[in-house]
Amino acid sequence: MKGKFYGIGVGPGDPELITLKAINILHEIDMIVSPEARANKGSFAYEIAAPHLPENLEELTLVFPMIHDRDELEKKWKENAEIIAGEINKGKDVAFLTLGDPCVYSTYMYIVPHLQKLGVEIETIPGITSFCSVAAKMNLPLATWEETFGIVPLREGCESAEKALDSFDNVVIMKPSHDNALLAEKLEERGLADKFVMISKCSTEEQIVTRDINDLKGEKVPYLSTIIVKRKGF
Amino acid sequence: MKGKFYGIGVGPGDPELITLKAINILHEIDMIVSPEARANKGSFAYEIAAPHLPENLEELTLVFPMIHDRDELEKKWKENAEIIAGEINKGKDVAFLTLGDPCVYSTYMYIVPHLQKLGVEIETIPGITSFCSVAAKMNLPLATWEETFGIVPLREGCESAEKALDSFDNVVIMKPSHDNALLAEKLEERGLADKFVMISKCSTEEQIVTRDINDLKGEKVPYLSTIIVKRKGF
Repeated sequence: MKGKFYGIGVGPGDPELITLKAINILHEIDMIVSPEARANKGSFAYEIAAPHLPENLEELTLVFPMIHDRDELEKKWKENAEIIAGEINKGKDVAFLTLGDPCVYSTYMYIVPHLQKLGVEIETIPGITSFCSVAAKMNLPLATWEETFGIVPLREGCESAEKALDSFDNVVIMKPSHDNALLAEKLEERGLADKFVMISKCSTEEQIVTRDINDLKGEKVPYLSTIIVKRKGF
Repeated sequence: MKGKFYGIGVGPGDPELITLKAINILHEIDMIVSPEARANKGSFAYEIAAPHLPENLEELTLVFPMIHDRDELEKKWKENAEIIAGEINKGKDVAFLTLGDPCVYSTYMYIVPHLQKLGVEIETIPGITSFCSVAAKMNLPLATWEETFGIVPLREGCESAEKALDSFDNVVIMKPSHDNALLAEKLEERGLADKFVMISKCSTEEQIVTRDINDLKGEKVPYLSTIIVKRKGF
């Protein structure tokens, strides 16, 4: 009998911010896949899940390169999906770990279509997103009443972020380090320099919180940072 | 010594979709507050948490009326905050349960400012949002690559929803029952009639999934429904 594939959100960093469902599944599966950006570079998702993993669980580390060539990526995902499907066809239940939530900007979602084509049964277990974690740390609503909120990954040029800042009440900007200095300018242009908060490495021991626009202009914005902008202020 | 106040997200409905952190706190607190829309109407958040509550936990049911008069509401929140602060000042750790995530359209966030004014120490524990749960059920990304996504609560007139549909790649529309027939029209106008999915009562036994625009036009859209629109299709 074929096994099943689980995509598991492990949450934003604190090993306690994982769901009971995820923990229960991690105790029932036969194999865990942990994605690495480069071979032997380790995986943050794996570190978060580690305290919940039973001993002697079979591990499969697959490299999901962070490159821009879409064709190369598709090829790599298909290859990885075939490796996973091979294990599932042997009867193993396999879990793929993903930081935060599997449906929000995760590598997991790129292999799902390939696995579906291969006839693999899939179940996705939601996780705590970085933006919910950040908002909770600050005791800050992402939205109340009739407010709208948008989620935008920052890319060079900040166009999507600008569009969001101009049309939504509250905006979550992910990965601000991609063009943080320009983003700081865009916030200043809109009179929003004092209406944002940035949290880096949220819910880990290295967490940093700042509302200083100069920090956003600087060169030391960590990759794992999230910004919440509230147009009406805090 | 004064106690502490916890705002706890219990997730979208499945009692397993609660975090380990929430469960651990529920075992350490002295009192639980469960919000009701009307006296003795019960609370869905409480039902979700029930399997995780220790026996003999002290319970405080507070009525948070669903009315539109903002002044009346503020008065009620302040009153409720004072009742909670009174218990905390007796040295009790008190938890407030909230459906989904406490930072996303929750009643919890309306009492936080009142409790802060009263000098209460507050910790918010994030939860799985309905939209992450819906997307996971469908094995569907909310966003990939450079896609943006917006979250909009539907109000009569659909203006915010229209704005979001015109500026974001993917849009989550919450509480579509507020004006579902008009929303269906707005989707049709934009050629999006086959680019949405609606899930009602997600991750409960009564879950309904539909992609049929006629279901959205009908009179039987449940209150606990969520729509995901993907402009590029599924």
